[in-house]
Amino acid sequence: MKDVDEIRHIAAIDLGSNSFHMVVAKVVNQDLQLVSRHKQRVRLATGLDEHKRLDQSAIQRGIECLEMFAERIQGFSPENVRITATHTLRQAKNTAEFIEQARRIIPYPVEVIPGTEEARLIYLGVAHTQPQSKSILVIDIGGGSTELIIGHEFTPELVNSLQIGCVSYTNRFFPDGKITRKRLNQAILAAEQKLESIVRQYRKKGWETAFGSSGTIKAVRDVLAESGHQDSSITPSRLEKLLDKIVDAGSIQDLSLKGLSEERKPVFVAGVAILYAVIKDLKIKEMHFSQGALREGLLYEMEDRLKYADIRLRTAESLALKHQVDIEHARNVKKLAVQFFEQLAPELDIPAKNTELLDLLEWSALLHEVGLSISLQGVHRHSAYILRHTNMPGFNTEQQELLSTLVRFHRKALKLNEMPELTLYKRKHVIEIIRILRLAVVLNGQRSDDPLPALKLTVNDHDNWTLNSKEKDWLENNKLLHTDLETEQQYWQSAGWSLHYT
Amino acid sequence: MKDVDEIRHIAAIDLGSNSFHMVVAKVVNQDLQLVSRHKQRVRLATGLDEHKRLDQSAIQRGIECLEMFAERIQGFSPENVRITATHTLRQAKNTAEFIEQARRIIPYPVEVIPGTEEARLIYLGVAHTQPQSKSILVIDIGGGSTELIIGHEFTPELVNSLQIGCVSYTNRFFPDGKITRKRLNQAILAAEQKLESIVRQYRKKGWETAFGSSGTIKAVRDVLAESGHQDSSITPSRLEKLLDKIVDAGSIQDLSLKGLSEERKPVFVAGVAILYAVIKDLKIKEMHFSQGALREGLLYEMEDRLKYADIRLRTAESLALKHQVDIEHARNVKKLAVQFFEQLAPELDIPAKNTELLDLLEWSALLHEVGLSISLQGVHRHSAYILRHTNMPGFNTEQQELLSTLVRFHRKALKLNEMPELTLYKRKHVIEIIRILRLAVVLNGQRSDDPLPALKLTVNDHDNWTLNSKEKDWLENNKLLHTDLETEQQYWQSAGWSLHYT
Repeated sequence: MKDVDEIRHIAAIDLGSNSFHMVVAKVVNQDLQLVSRHKQRVRLATGLDEHKRLDQSAIQRGIECLEMFAERIQGFSPENVRITATHTLRQAKNTAEFIEQARRIIPYPVEVIPGTEEARLIYLGVAHTQPQSKSILVIDIGGGSTELIIGHEFTPELVNSLQIGCVSYTNRFFPDGKITRKRLNQAILAAEQKLESIVRQYRKKGWETAFGSSGTIKAVRDVLAESGHQDSSITPSRLEKLLDKIVDAGSIQDLSLKGLSEERKPVFVAGVAILYAVIKDLKIKEMHFSQGALREGLLYEMEDRLKYADIRLRTAESLALKHQVDIEHARNVKKLAVQFFEQLAPELDIPAKNTELLDLLEWSALLHEVGLSISLQGVHRHSAYILRHTNMPGFNTEQQELLSTLVRFHRKALKLNEMPELTLYKRKHVIEIIRILRLAVVLNGQRSDDPLPALKLTVNDHDNWTLNSKEKDWLENNKLLHTDLETEQQYWQSAGWSLHYT
Repeated sequence: MKDVDEIRHIAAIDLGSNSFHMVVAKVVNQDLQLVSRHKQRVRLATGLDEHKRLDQSAIQRGIECLEMFAERIQGFSPENVRITATHTLRQAKNTAEFIEQARRIIPYPVEVIPGTEEARLIYLGVAHTQPQSKSILVIDIGGGSTELIIGHEFTPELVNSLQIGCVSYTNRFFPDGKITRKRLNQAILAAEQKLESIVRQYRKKGWETAFGSSGTIKAVRDVLAESGHQDSSITPSRLEKLLDKIVDAGSIQDLSLKGLSEERKPVFVAGVAILYAVIKDLKIKEMHFSQGALREGLLYEMEDRLKYADIRLRTAESLALKHQVDIEHARNVKKLAVQFFEQLAPELDIPAKNTELLDLLEWSALLHEVGLSISLQGVHRHSAYILRHTNMPGFNTEQQELLSTLVRFHRKALKLNEMPELTLYKRKHVIEIIRILRLAVVLNGQRSDDPLPALKLTVNDHDNWTLNSKEKDWLENNKLLHTDLETEQQYWQSAGWSLHYT
């Protein structure tokens, strides 16, 4: 049995707007060997109605694909599978409905990730797949969004995700399939408008090699190869000739290009228009297709999280630095919060192995005062605003939302109706983490150099917590802390919880 | 007539929560000579009901006082008078009602200022009034808020305003006038809770001399002087003895202290409690009373704005720096915006001398992208959030609100229902400034190094503007810019305006 255990298999699934993908790899000598790739055209994006709700047939197509994937990775343990969802599930109002159905089929969390996080992972996928260049540009044109990244070796440096996609542009510029030069130019110009605010930065930074990593770019590569360009490189002049051929065809259904699959055809024209806008505006002389993509990025990141540090820790630390957080205070809060978490974990029904919640608690302690860079008054709201809207490498959308929620509630009245609904975390656990964080903040409220006495936090029943110290007079000797705890007690009471201290 | 003109008189009026103050000074040889001080106890704060609305009798008391002040400064030209309002008018929901009535009586703008701006001006007032110390601490305990500032010479460095005031604390802790040791300690502890998050910074920074500058501190100084402390210094031990006497009195009405006026008596006890909390927590060994206060700060600042640069420019520049704004782009936007303003000012009914609106336009151009420090997506909202909540020295509340509004609307859909109501600026003017800013931003959208052709903006009627260039083909040669202007035209159309370009 032992050698079976030693060969670890990991899987990454990417729920895209156009296709769902899965890659499975085995970890061999600290390295990844791809075992299989799976792809199914699900066309989630086309199921989004004008109210941004996914229709039932799109949900059904997605679930059926996941059933197939689930079979392949049956028995994989949770730390060996990651499933991420991108543009369409970011947009859809009823994403929770999809995720709930998915959970019954495939027992791993589905993480919706922000566009910039998608971009970062794509970069990692490409950077790990390509022969090493010092600095690379990566372009990924998806169904609903386009990612543009410049990085150095394995570190992405410029990261953007724009709302330009081959599915959405097909609907917008070629709804009836008719192709004219004017429509094509309109699609190109619309993409250029989106690109406009970032191109200068990219051109200024520069790169050695440009890669494209999506179905659109693969299809362009294939078509160019079939028309005699065996070197597989995509250049502006080759694209211009391709655009001419596309106009000549007159409609999507009459488009007949060697190397273009029937599956890709419906969204190919919009994809080429977008690619042309990117190549032109960034002044890309030559681009190559890379096999590496979001799912490969996910795989390598799963390995990295195990082998090295979690990138989210680096993100949290660099945010704390950027906003000049009082690190000494933040560390004191974190230390006490961790201590309380460990005291309570056995009593609450937080699974002992749930280091995820503990991580999030630690990062919220580190970051609860980032909002001071805006103002002391209302600092909790400012911190929440910053953490909700900043690009945070490594965090999925819900983790970022949760972190924002934790700092939002680190002080003042507990307006729990403002808490968002989450799918990856239980509300009960979130509330417990908030209570722990608040206590750690209150108890460090004086930012004093004098250490606190040893404290023990216990749970009587779920809503009823007790804090005590062996030092009998600890509150007698610190009236201000006593008053702060009284105030905190009142906040808890208004939320329906009770807090005792002795 | 000439020498009359040469002696310039300036006046500053401060609408406080407890009293209204006016100081008049003449400018002699680049220096200020105080001519007169006026004070009236208006007790605005006591007129605030539980819904935070000022009752009619409080408004009436305020207006009557302003009538008296108005008489004294009749004929002063607008640039020689500043009127600021603080805590109670910051809080009241119907401040606009008060300001509207005030405008009929006294023809100068009433500026509500944020707490931190109040603190900064108080510091300037004290720093200009005192024999120079290198670093000073200034404490001002008002009716509704307490300001704490440490500065170096004429530059405030640590600036805070907390919601602790002698009127509000009297209502909260001594509503029936009864004084007990317990109530007094509760008031002290409540103040300490508010001070808690900032004291450490202050103690760490340190100061040479501590000054107090409010009615509360003047009254304490007077009472201590009458009890034999002729050196006029306020120390912790003297305050403790004073607190003992206060407890012995048993009630506010039975309080009989030599040197304490009947007018001050009602709020004296709460004021002493707050002062004691400050002195204890900041570990102030000795504090002196300073005549300088908010109104003196206002006077000196009026002079400084004329003699030196407007501090608001420094504020805008340092914010741009802090958020690493692309200065080159910001300057291009600013330049074009100023050019358009100058072209339009004669046609719109913006008074030629209204450099105020032009200043605000320039600063909004400089700051419209501060939100990029959070994220590109929704940058206009992030910029607006930062400018609404950041401490911005020199700006009154409405100017800050206006700046936030301008950047909020610098791009994307014109949801004009989100525009705030302002009292100092006409909505019509604000909208014109927004249109100018937007055009300057759109036209610089490509962040190109190539200069734009000479452009001329004209107004046909109020809602109908035309942009043209002598270079006939300027839009033919730049299709992307043309498309951007088309998009902008659509935004304008949805707002009921029209934009032509030729």
